Amino acid sequence: MNQPPSGQLKITEQSRVRRGRLRASYDRKLVYSIIDEALVAYLGIVVDGRPFVLPTSHWRDGDRIYWHGASNGRMTVGVDGQDVCLTLTLLDGLVLARSAFNHSVNYRSVMLFGKPERVTDPGEKARQLERFIEHIAPDRWDRLRPMNEKELKATGVMFMPIDEGSAKVRAAPPVDDEQDYDWPVWAGVLPLQSRWGQPEPCPRMTMDCCPPTPPGPWKAKV
Amino acid sequence: MNQPPSGQLKITEQSRVRRGRLRASYDRKLVYSIIDEALVAYLGIVVDGRPFVLPTSHWRDGDRIYWHGASNGRMTVGVDGQDVCLTLTLLDGLVLARSAFNHSVNYRSVMLFGKPERVTDPGEKARQLERFIEHIAPDRWDRLRPMNEKELKATGVMFMPIDEGSAKVRAAPPVDDEQDYDWPVWAGVLPLQSRWGQPEPCPRMTMDCCPPTPPGPWKAKV
Repeated sequence: MNQPPSGQLKITEQSRVRRGRLRASYDRKLVYSIIDEALVAYLGIVVDGRPFVLPTSHWRDGDRIYWHGASNGRMTVGVDGQDVCLTLTLLDGLVLARSAFNHSVNYRSVMLFGKPERVTDPGEKARQLERFIEHIAPDRWDRLRPMNEKELKATGVMFMPIDEGSAKVRAAPPVDDEQDYDWPVWAGVLPLQSRWGQPEPCPRMTMDCCPPTPPGPWKAKV
Repeated sequence: MNQPPSGQLKITEQSRVRRGRLRASYDRKLVYSIIDEALVAYLGIVVDGRPFVLPTSHWRDGDRIYWHGASNGRMTVGVDGQDVCLTLTLLDGLVLARSAFNHSVNYRSVMLFGKPERVTDPGEKARQLERFIEHIAPDRWDRLRPMNEKELKATGVMFMPIDEGSAKVRAAPPVDDEQDYDWPVWAGVLPLQSRWGQPEPCPRMTMDCCPPTPPGPWKAKV
């Protein structure tokens, strides 16, 4: 967003990709593009030795990933300084091969590790919430009823440096066993697409207003 | 799938929904419908005290959820008998309110807890892999090059009873502060839709074959 990213994420014992190494990448530019396109991130935490996976919305500012929640919640103070894993996946298609074994999916995913911190400065918190709204609803912040102090206090904003992690990508036709290519079955990719439907106005709208600008890379399809 | 589900999931200290209790449900029918529609599940595990969130494909057979992986992998033997959390989310739309604070998303999500077990019987493993292919590629199994013993051995199939967990659903227009409804900004829901694109045949297809039947509830849109 701010400047063209370059370089690689840190490869550690934790973030080194074990399965499907050919699909792995540590390239920041790729990682950022997946983070920016995804609308849901899955936050993995450990509570009393047990795993929890909490879905959340997220956004990015430079080399940090952010999320928010109730300021006293499990996703905010509950993970302050704790080890977490944040995973995002974009499913791009089903890969239909000649054998069951070679079926696959085309996807772009990111897995990040780190210890989140709370944004404590109120001005920075407000700035980040504006970035969040900009991410899911471009050109909207200035038209909204301004945020008040009570709302700002009730909202916790967390961030984590995008530092240790990896991306995995598959974007290819099926790869079959050499002797299977003549098998008489359709083979190929069934692409999965996301698109915005017709905006559904709130039944309590009292005036005519401009329809919203949809976010993300699917703008043209509305 | 097999028979109409009824009843509720078990509510435990772990699965009791804390935030947004009005959106929570333990209804099996709802939980199953979300599991069946979702194409990606997020498996949360703990390794050396740290959380990992691994995206995977899944399927359901009656009151059990299944996934597969390399038979010696972290997602299969690695979680045999361990505590896991499996989370799935369908994002249905963005909810644009009059204030930033009241923005939300419409979604359907499921969070399950349990200790997965390995399917050890080869016949049952083959039967479940057939169900998996049926889930992502209906009417396809019988046309494929049959699975061989080596492939069956290389594939691990895990299952977990759908027993302890919860669903959360939001499906509504924005809910604003009473004094904000007249604020001059568009408010409502921006629905997000999934659809299958045109099938992309494998460049190495050597004959004309029937195009595939796409899976899931979006069939009509192809």
